[in-house]
Amino acid sequence: MSQDFDITQVYLKFLEDDQDMTMPIAAIESLVTMLRIKQPSTSSELINLVKSNTDKLKSSISNAISLSAGCDLFMRFVLRNINLYSDWESCRRDLVENGELFVQRAKESRSKAAQFGLPFIKDDDIILVHSFSRVVYQMLLMAKKEKLIRFRVIVTESRPSEKGYHMASLLRTAGIPVEVIVDNAVGYVIHKVDKIIVGAEGVAESGGIINHIGSYQIGCLAKTNNKPFYVVTESHKFVRLFPLAPDDLPNQISPVLSATNSSINAILESESDNPKSLLSIQQIDFTPHEFITALITDLGVLTPSAVSEELIKIWYD
Amino acid sequence: MSQDFDITQVYLKFLEDDQDMTMPIAAIESLVTMLRIKQPSTSSELINLVKSNTDKLKSSISNAISLSAGCDLFMRFVLRNINLYSDWESCRRDLVENGELFVQRAKESRSKAAQFGLPFIKDDDIILVHSFSRVVYQMLLMAKKEKLIRFRVIVTESRPSEKGYHMASLLRTAGIPVEVIVDNAVGYVIHKVDKIIVGAEGVAESGGIINHIGSYQIGCLAKTNNKPFYVVTESHKFVRLFPLAPDDLPNQISPVLSATNSSINAILESESDNPKSLLSIQQIDFTPHEFITALITDLGVLTPSAVSEELIKIWYD
Repeated sequence: MSQDFDITQVYLKFLEDDQDMTMPIAAIESLVTMLRIKQPSTSSELINLVKSNTDKLKSSISNAISLSAGCDLFMRFVLRNINLYSDWESCRRDLVENGELFVQRAKESRSKAAQFGLPFIKDDDIILVHSFSRVVYQMLLMAKKEKLIRFRVIVTESRPSEKGYHMASLLRTAGIPVEVIVDNAVGYVIHKVDKIIVGAEGVAESGGIINHIGSYQIGCLAKTNNKPFYVVTESHKFVRLFPLAPDDLPNQISPVLSATNSSINAILESESDNPKSLLSIQQIDFTPHEFITALITDLGVLTPSAVSEELIKIWYD
Repeated sequence: MSQDFDITQVYLKFLEDDQDMTMPIAAIESLVTMLRIKQPSTSSELINLVKSNTDKLKSSISNAISLSAGCDLFMRFVLRNINLYSDWESCRRDLVENGELFVQRAKESRSKAAQFGLPFIKDDDIILVHSFSRVVYQMLLMAKKEKLIRFRVIVTESRPSEKGYHMASLLRTAGIPVEVIVDNAVGYVIHKVDKIIVGAEGVAESGGIINHIGSYQIGCLAKTNNKPFYVVTESHKFVRLFPLAPDDLPNQISPVLSATNSSINAILESESDNPKSLLSIQQIDFTPHEFITALITDLGVLTPSAVSEELIKIWYD
């Protein structure tokens, strides 16, 4: 049983079973499951198990930024708690139990963040939303159902994933007036929009966000037009990364951009065979902190610069 | 014969017969054809004919900005020349002949503009192109074939028209390394891009351009990232409009943006039936002059502020 445990399979199963589960929570939950099954007999074995499984998970999943945030957070949690116990048996049992508590709390953070965001939505607002985000959806739903606020939403179609259509149909079902626009039309509508709300895949140390591609240019437009740009996210998505540019992410590189002169011909040939190039499937970009008005998290409403403080609290207190 | 002349049909036929013809030239050519067929017998009849046909053309074609530039220019040409003659017969004959000359010169202006643009393309450049533009294509083609410059091109797919794919396939046929990106990825690649070149549907008095939707946000990104943003266009696309914002254009209005509270329910119902809303088919936006580095036209390379001077020269000298 313990031999053929495959962390990637477990992780994907968690995501599949629960559509509401985000990647970091699924990652933590898989690690807790792994510990329950593997039953490590020394603390060093436990740490090695967590470490090797984390690496395996990170390498097998593409676009692993929020996933690695969850794994790192769990590792930190293990290292902090492992020294508190005198006997190994109770330590192991408590770790698994607390691991589940940890997952529970991470799950609750979504509705907490949504709750903190409610005062930002006012009657008659026109809100621009980019791509699909569970926490943004929950926040808009709460504003509509609990606070009875009347507002309108514009959703970008969010190529290449086209998750905007999913977001729009969910909002429409909830009775919120919504319209889908092409990503090109953001500049066209931005004058009419009152605020922009997006989710995040991960929040970097600088307070910038890693999110669905296109977030950077929306942030840029928001700043030029003096519109507030809010990010709603759970604090377990804070990651220890410091990207310096929208494309400074651990990713594939476009063949045209990185090509040397000698390889240009190869591109010309391959391109004509394969119209779907790497760049057209790039899923995320980085929005630097200067474009973000505020981060609405389960810890409260933070300025981008407060993120590093929170990260220091988590990692060095 | 003269009774059942339909200017719209003639106009559409010109566009269909010659894929290289732009809207203002087709409009002027239809007006010249109209004069040749109708044979007006007084100057006042001639002016009325041009006026009524222009109005008919403008109202029957949606997205009539560059078209109306052509019509207005022809009207100006008629009014200037009509007083130069003493006898009516030679006046009418010359008007039609000169009209054809006028069309000829307008056609040549494309390659002139492309010629002026050549020094802007350097070896090893990575050029971002938005949507399909005949003059941009001609300029890139000349740079490749005549100047033997080696450069790479990134083309946006340009939703909702998706004309970027057409542009990319033309460039690929010409042996230029090209990659199509989703419109959302412009912010992601802008750091790697050396310059941005777009065409225009029309150039406003302020020097801003009316072009395929999404041009405004690319201009905004270019300015934030200090990248040159060049517009290549023929001078007969200068129009006497003064838009104040990206959405300040003679267009349809989105139902969600313009709705009063009482009509919200109607939208909710209609939206669910009709996922293709007005906004998702909006084709153009306006890019203000402050985002434009230079306009490359058949009159030479102009700063945006020089456009109003040229317009004054055309209209008030």
